[in-house]
Amino acid sequence: MKIIRHIENPLITPKNIKPSRPDMEVIGAFNCGVTQYNNETVLLIRVAEKYKSPSVSIVGVPMYDVTQKKVVIKLFDKRNGSIDFNDPRFVKTKDMLYLTSMSHLRLAKSKDGINFIIDEKPWLVPSDYYESYGIEDPRITQIGDEYYINYSAISQSGVVTCLAVTKDFVTYEKKGIIFLADNKDVVIFPDKIKGVYYAINRPVSAYFQRPEMWMSTSKDLESFGNHQLLCSLREDRFDDTRIGASCVPILTEKGWIEIYHGASKDNQYKLGILLLDKDDPSKILYRSEKPWIESEMDYEKNGFMPNVIFPCGLIVKQDIVSLYYGNCDENICLLTFSLSELLKSIKV
Amino acid sequence: MKIIRHIENPLITPKNIKPSRPDMEVIGAFNCGVTQYNNETVLLIRVAEKYKSPSVSIVGVPMYDVTQKKVVIKLFDKRNGSIDFNDPRFVKTKDMLYLTSMSHLRLAKSKDGINFIIDEKPWLVPSDYYESYGIEDPRITQIGDEYYINYSAISQSGVVTCLAVTKDFVTYEKKGIIFLADNKDVVIFPDKIKGVYYAINRPVSAYFQRPEMWMSTSKDLESFGNHQLLCSLREDRFDDTRIGASCVPILTEKGWIEIYHGASKDNQYKLGILLLDKDDPSKILYRSEKPWIESEMDYEKNGFMPNVIFPCGLIVKQDIVSLYYGNCDENICLLTFSLSELLKSIKV
Repeated sequence: MKIIRHIENPLITPKNIKPSRPDMEVIGAFNCGVTQYNNETVLLIRVAEKYKSPSVSIVGVPMYDVTQKKVVIKLFDKRNGSIDFNDPRFVKTKDMLYLTSMSHLRLAKSKDGINFIIDEKPWLVPSDYYESYGIEDPRITQIGDEYYINYSAISQSGVVTCLAVTKDFVTYEKKGIIFLADNKDVVIFPDKIKGVYYAINRPVSAYFQRPEMWMSTSKDLESFGNHQLLCSLREDRFDDTRIGASCVPILTEKGWIEIYHGASKDNQYKLGILLLDKDDPSKILYRSEKPWIESEMDYEKNGFMPNVIFPCGLIVKQDIVSLYYGNCDENICLLTFSLSELLKSIKV
Repeated sequence: MKIIRHIENPLITPKNIKPSRPDMEVIGAFNCGVTQYNNETVLLIRVAEKYKSPSVSIVGVPMYDVTQKKVVIKLFDKRNGSIDFNDPRFVKTKDMLYLTSMSHLRLAKSKDGINFIIDEKPWLVPSDYYESYGIEDPRITQIGDEYYINYSAISQSGVVTCLAVTKDFVTYEKKGIIFLADNKDVVIFPDKIKGVYYAINRPVSAYFQRPEMWMSTSKDLESFGNHQLLCSLREDRFDDTRIGASCVPILTEKGWIEIYHGASKDNQYKLGILLLDKDDPSKILYRSEKPWIESEMDYEKNGFMPNVIFPCGLIVKQDIVSLYYGNCDENICLLTFSLSELLKSIKV
């Protein structure tokens, strides 16, 4: 089947994003939730920023301070031998792990799905302890006239998944944590199935370290239960180390199409396809044997985290699917394909 | 306040337990759930067993096999240099972590709370993938005429908490997973509070490694939500590294008494006291500054895991609380104290 990467890729880069404040610089504009609202394509972009340190010997860690109710910069001296600065993404003290960048979510809108008007200011921002190290990787599920936005929230307590809801992409209501640490890569199905909501999620055990896809259900999108392992790692394949749901599932006549990401020990993130039973999406009808999409283009192979293809959302218009994906944890790209061609390629 | 350790401690040791099969030996009888049923004290004992290897160069890992529907022994050759046998509790291959012991739950009953008749056979046993490495550390909450038993279930996917329910301690119904990996040390409150059930639980982040106590609520004991951090680690104290709920909370006129365990970097498990608000147990009214109970006796200081005091249940009769605790991850001990004396010692 034909997969068409957009000629203008990457469509959005950090250069297109205004920093949230003068002492911060944008280092990533990637992993965006996607939906349609008012005949426009809406992206909710993960914007990662880091502190512009005035000195090479000082590292500043941005974090939301609950008492002051704002983002503050915690400074660390690189000459302090008791602190570990080896991985530029982290600062590690004896007892604490800090992140050197912090993400918020930024709105962008487009009439054609290609040329976006990006908000100058953050939209969904950290506002409590659980979000104090930032919020990341949103997915948007439309249910009736409401848009449910789930996202990863990071704090000393770990990576949890939170939920917010909006009707107009102007105001939103935060609903709190729906999956406890560590759990991310959550996608909520766009409708109840036989009376319950389904959500794929990705818990990970500190001891056993097998990040795999689970299915949970909910009557009200507040409490989740009925947890089951949905999809495991596969030895010696592209998805042998880490997998997670990427996009909100698409309902087709054959069942639910779930586009997921898988990584091997080399940290290359590739995409796979699951077909899930229409009436019981905890049943897998098909799983792609080989990567469905992997890094091919220069812009996919070179960047902040090379060879990472990571979509968080898509739009279906008639038969054409527009998939927006983060590449290299840095930019946003677009590819399109025919849904019917994809379905034809799936033999069940 | 006076804390009386029973003169016959430890009351139950591995020697008192019949192995589940001839090729296994019991290495621990500890961490028991406790309740009263039919005027008897009922213990649900965690029984840990390991394979009696016929050869010093062979290690056998017991695990529940889903296909064969029984416990099988997976053999590893200690002379295989690619496998890590350094920690006697684990076998580590390139991709997998195995446990060298496996636990099930065994019933014991007593008229006087001291002399127990212990079942010759396991009662609650692993029966699915999520329980394939064993089930551990039960807590029992009586709600009406039903006894809800939650326990840790171990598998390659991590440590989850499962729920089972019984009315008679003869048959039970398994309800599946209520908290995803890694999450253990769950205690369910013995009644709805303002229309919802509460459960303390203990998620742990693979990245941030701060095992702390959280509070979640449920309308039906199937789905849980409204997750909030309840109680954090405290720097440079007995509970600066790891904490978790131990016993089902006791309702008093001052609020809910929660006896919890805390450990420091030295892996000594001591007990602390929380007083939680009667109407909103996510509010802490009091937390003990110092350990309330710690290892003192020889049998607490010496054993499989020295200096571990770990209760999973208690019984209140009039003013006397009988606390059954695992010592050294090996035996079961009993101590008693006066509830009114404890309450008097809590200044709020």
